[in-house]
Amino acid sequence: MSRYCLTIEYDGTPFTGWQVQARGESIQGMLERAFHAFCGETVSVRGAGRTDAGVHALGQVAHVALSKDWEPFRVREAVNFHLKPAPIVILDCALAAPDFDARFSATRRHYLYRILTRRAPPALDRDRVWWLNHALDVDAMHEAAKALVGRHDFTTFRASQCQAKSPLRTLDRLDVSRSGDEIHVEASARSFLHNQVRSMVGTLKLVGEGRWTRRQVEEALAARDRTRCGAVAPPSGLYLVRVDYDAPSGLASGPATEVAEDDG
Amino acid sequence: MSRYCLTIEYDGTPFTGWQVQARGESIQGMLERAFHAFCGETVSVRGAGRTDAGVHALGQVAHVALSKDWEPFRVREAVNFHLKPAPIVILDCALAAPDFDARFSATRRHYLYRILTRRAPPALDRDRVWWLNHALDVDAMHEAAKALVGRHDFTTFRASQCQAKSPLRTLDRLDVSRSGDEIHVEASARSFLHNQVRSMVGTLKLVGEGRWTRRQVEEALAARDRTRCGAVAPPSGLYLVRVDYDAPSGLASGPATEVAEDDG
Repeated sequence: MSRYCLTIEYDGTPFTGWQVQARGESIQGMLERAFHAFCGETVSVRGAGRTDAGVHALGQVAHVALSKDWEPFRVREAVNFHLKPAPIVILDCALAAPDFDARFSATRRHYLYRILTRRAPPALDRDRVWWLNHALDVDAMHEAAKALVGRHDFTTFRASQCQAKSPLRTLDRLDVSRSGDEIHVEASARSFLHNQVRSMVGTLKLVGEGRWTRRQVEEALAARDRTRCGAVAPPSGLYLVRVDYDAPSGLASGPATEVAEDDG
Repeated sequence: MSRYCLTIEYDGTPFTGWQVQARGESIQGMLERAFHAFCGETVSVRGAGRTDAGVHALGQVAHVALSKDWEPFRVREAVNFHLKPAPIVILDCALAAPDFDARFSATRRHYLYRILTRRAPPALDRDRVWWLNHALDVDAMHEAAKALVGRHDFTTFRASQCQAKSPLRTLDRLDVSRSGDEIHVEASARSFLHNQVRSMVGTLKLVGEGRWTRRQVEEALAARDRTRCGAVAPPSGLYLVRVDYDAPSGLASGPATEVAEDDG
């Protein structure tokens, strides 16, 4: 019996999200089928972040246990072969400790949100960005984002269907910067509530438009009221960039409520 | 009667190329139909570079003449509306001098070629790069590229169906650099022969693999023989980035053989 840690890139556009659902194709389901095609085993592939439909990953991390020992590079090559033509690829496969858990051992998740601000819609980056046909005040957005950094009750920025036991999260980073025609929002935390990143981006967009002030963002956070959040930003702009673990065992020792879930 | 200069972005994947063909959808054809839907006129949209099937543009330039005078921003907005859902957008529309010609007035074309070098195929950048599952020696490629810069007979790097009158071209820039997992080849010239950029990239790839030396590239160039060129690189990695004109009239005065055509 061997446990493997997988680093995965995917285009979330054609999928119902990471997690296996009753209907539609999920990324997890595609991976589990590719593993079955490779080695005949019915496996469970557990991911660090349960990304929503349309959300992308540059570095999702998942673990899988196989009864037979395979060279990690063979696992990667064979599963990538069986994943074709789905836009999902295993970038890296490594042997992991027997108790490594991609979700519960994660110490930090890093997300990127891309907003394209120009008059013309995207031709090459369709389904890869949130397109807005007007400018945003990136400095005001970055300033307001600081109000959300730290340990808070993020009920305001949480989806109604969020299953987390606690709305408390520690947001380590929320930076807003310009890159050409794009605005990038970079968020890092041990874990996020369901829709938290997209809810925060949707609210920061109102600040960028001059419709909200930093003060209003603070008040919305303090209100702990989902109806006070700006419209949730669309999934197409969101990327799970990286997941950190304590090297080399991949075991974390943080409080369970903070590591139990992550839904970007 | 007004003449407009259009800056255009497109994903070349679903098209037969820039130019209208007997069969299949071309970018030029889609634009001409969108103009007809907008103003009822049957127009000719003339582009600076006749990109091949699968080749992309970040900044193709074209001109079009309309019998009625429209505000340029209205032209852009209306044609973009009628282009949907095709992955073609007009980024900019400006009034041009009556004798402005996107093709013949161009003073320089800039192309980018993206090669992704990693074991796993691209999930997010499928159809956007040339994927190679092994490393390339970028320094050797850059060194060999210098052998092609300058005024040469580029017969070796020219498609058999190239219609240019002369194989002489002046290559102003051919730089090879690394950007993360990617290798970027940047090429600039007043104009290029048909398949010239992709032919040069295909040859530089052999240098990056250690199969060719700079000396062999020089000999292939001097041979003026199409059979001496490396395999032509696929279209998916090629981008027409920008086209330069003499401001503000948009008129160039270079020799006709150098500006008559461009086919990347």
